[in-house]
Amino acid sequence: MNQELTKDLFRQIKELIDQKNASELEAILHELHPADIAEVLDDLDFKQAIYVIKLLDSEVTADILKELDEDTRERVLQNLSSKEIAEEIDELDTDDAVDILYELSESKKAEVIAHIEDVEHAKDIVELMRFDPDTAGGLMGKELVKVNENWTNMTCVREMRKQAAEFDRVHTIYVVDDHDVLKGRLSLKSLLTTSTKTPVKEVYNPKIHSVHINDSDEEIAQIMQKYDLFVVPVVDEIGRLVGQITIDDVVDIIKDEAEKDYQMAAGLTDDVEANDNIWELTRARLPWLVLGLIGGMGAASIMGGFEDAFETHPELFLFTPMIAAMGGNVGVQSSAIIVQSLANGNLKGNVWTRLFKEISMALISSLVVSGLIYGFTHFIQGQPNQVSFVVAFSLTVVIIVAALIGTFVPLLLDKRGIDPALATGPFITTSNDIFGIFIYFYIAKIILGF
Amino acid sequence: MNQELTKDLFRQIKELIDQKNASELEAILHELHPADIAEVLDDLDFKQAIYVIKLLDSEVTADILKELDEDTRERVLQNLSSKEIAEEIDELDTDDAVDILYELSESKKAEVIAHIEDVEHAKDIVELMRFDPDTAGGLMGKELVKVNENWTNMTCVREMRKQAAEFDRVHTIYVVDDHDVLKGRLSLKSLLTTSTKTPVKEVYNPKIHSVHINDSDEEIAQIMQKYDLFVVPVVDEIGRLVGQITIDDVVDIIKDEAEKDYQMAAGLTDDVEANDNIWELTRARLPWLVLGLIGGMGAASIMGGFEDAFETHPELFLFTPMIAAMGGNVGVQSSAIIVQSLANGNLKGNVWTRLFKEISMALISSLVVSGLIYGFTHFIQGQPNQVSFVVAFSLTVVIIVAALIGTFVPLLLDKRGIDPALATGPFITTSNDIFGIFIYFYIAKIILGF
Repeated sequence: MNQELTKDLFRQIKELIDQKNASELEAILHELHPADIAEVLDDLDFKQAIYVIKLLDSEVTADILKELDEDTRERVLQNLSSKEIAEEIDELDTDDAVDILYELSESKKAEVIAHIEDVEHAKDIVELMRFDPDTAGGLMGKELVKVNENWTNMTCVREMRKQAAEFDRVHTIYVVDDHDVLKGRLSLKSLLTTSTKTPVKEVYNPKIHSVHINDSDEEIAQIMQKYDLFVVPVVDEIGRLVGQITIDDVVDIIKDEAEKDYQMAAGLTDDVEANDNIWELTRARLPWLVLGLIGGMGAASIMGGFEDAFETHPELFLFTPMIAAMGGNVGVQSSAIIVQSLANGNLKGNVWTRLFKEISMALISSLVVSGLIYGFTHFIQGQPNQVSFVVAFSLTVVIIVAALIGTFVPLLLDKRGIDPALATGPFITTSNDIFGIFIYFYIAKIILGF
Repeated sequence: MNQELTKDLFRQIKELIDQKNASELEAILHELHPADIAEVLDDLDFKQAIYVIKLLDSEVTADILKELDEDTRERVLQNLSSKEIAEEIDELDTDDAVDILYELSESKKAEVIAHIEDVEHAKDIVELMRFDPDTAGGLMGKELVKVNENWTNMTCVREMRKQAAEFDRVHTIYVVDDHDVLKGRLSLKSLLTTSTKTPVKEVYNPKIHSVHINDSDEEIAQIMQKYDLFVVPVVDEIGRLVGQITIDDVVDIIKDEAEKDYQMAAGLTDDVEANDNIWELTRARLPWLVLGLIGGMGAASIMGGFEDAFETHPELFLFTPMIAAMGGNVGVQSSAIIVQSLANGNLKGNVWTRLFKEISMALISSLVVSGLIYGFTHFIQGQPNQVSFVVAFSLTVVIIVAALIGTFVPLLLDKRGIDPALATGPFITTSNDIFGIFIYFYIAKIILGF
């Protein structure tokens, strides 16, 4: 089994690098999985990382390169010659090779491709680079095992021996016709259990899910999840088998999708991480802060319009942050539920049932919350008064309005083909702040008559 | 290939169910994938769904059952007898069978198990039910193909024929010793390319990642993602191969994890969906709303302590929603970045670099934002004044404090073994509301001297 990457081992590796103890280092790294070595390199100084990369075989470093953090990989690639990168590319599966090539400048890309030794590999890579990276064509690899429907079982085994020798793992044996059109798959079961003379045609399974070369990564992720697929074949416009997509690439897409919704809700415009630099972090955060600021100014202007209240009922102003916050919280909750249900494709029922549901739920919540606040304002103010009633009543209205905005704005965006997640977080919070303040003072004005 | 589930087909199926046209319905459903049939059933009236289930073979319905929405499945299961459920269970892989049994009452569970015909299958299921559902033991299935290291290649093929005949798909061929201890894996490549008399011992690949039977689902998800595994073998305390976990189960865990963080940030205490009933939705939302309310009352009390300001500088109160909102937004952004980096395991650098980074970033953001607000208050108030300065300056301080709280509270929780996502959303927003208001009025009091 692979050696596990413990903290002690981590420290030992670092020491060996400092001592430039190449032989011992090689012995240790040889036992580690490339993903573990990548984890070590991500944590090293850049020069040390280069030292390790140059020490190891391109067979191993190619797999390490694939697993590195984008930032580390970028710097490592900048320090390798085109010929060295081409050697790494030669070792990688076509889909991973293309991913790395995408990160190079146009001129370097051309140089690297010119240095690839295996011409067939280079052809495949060039073909894959034509596709949009977010489509099946951009995601797929060319490495797969296929057999002709007219072969016998024996021919299959012989041909597969040749094909399989090139690939690390065989997930599915595809069956194609003479024109390379995908017909189905041959299970290991049939391969093992049928007689050697049986033609493939008689034993293959024609039920197979495939995706079209232009399908988007999100569609592919949905299909693979729905049908629990580990690999899915990609076919072109005339049904020919042109590649396959494996679940590990799709897991990243599923994760990125879920994380993107979270980021939008948290008011981040980019996929930033704690390790990014100050400039990247600030750029991702500032747009929403400015939006919040505009909302705040809007709320201030609205309150300015009710300035008579300062004289007659100054205590009204004590509750503005609460009104704004509750509106924001309810709105974010409603929109999060909708966005997630939309993302999972399990939103049912029509607009009216949804409307009824949101209003009922908002009513129950607001009754509890308004009851509490009525009790509280009563308590601190000593006796029943109209302000307590204004706060409690407007809170009820604000919660209902916020729930409706939070529910129907994302639904509306989704209908128009806009990402509903846009309507979560700061966006909903900010608009609910303004609406909330306005509703609150408007109700106060009517009831208290200032 | 499988028939695709189009909208027309959907409608046609519904019509056939209404007409109780069993023969045509069967013909159509026969061409569909169970996941597609489940999608149709999820959208049907409950009685219609039962009609379809009773119409089809248990071989198909078992797979449909697995794919149904939890709510629909619960109702379907309630309408099937223990014997009927046992027939479904007989057709399912052990891990899926256990998932369904978990949803039954204790008494019904026992009845169903007593009705399972295949004794070996029942034994495996009973064994799996002993494990915590969130551990490797609870996730794994018993279905796998294994060969003994002492067998020759030919014996392997013969034995595998027997084993593989039982299973739909073979992902990995495991190699074990005489005590069933996991030794490695046999690639299809070696199986196809070595001579029939070669012992497995000489050709198997000893590099294999495995998980321990007590490992948590999150650990398993991390390992499978890190090493790009499609299946991972599960070993017990003495290294024996006891089951395997497939990536499709783990994809759900990865998705649930990402969604859980999102839900916490949005102030939902449960994994609710838009289709859940009003009571479930309200219960998931109310705790955070009450927290927000308490925060709002806290803010009101703090402002009450600065009531002199009503007389001297009432315009200060116009900006409280903005101060509170900005504190909340910055805090949520900071905590989201940390929570996500922690979840992805790529948080680097020590506390001091992080502190420096957050303060720099907050400073840049607050300079931009304060500049804007200073200009704005200036503009609406006609001339430079101290209140504009108070607002701009406190905004700077509030942003820095909020960024630090948002960053270090989740880090602290994580260190103490508490889910850092707890510190996102309403929790951070609420505490930042209170801190923000206090800082604002405190600074105002010092500068304006009321």
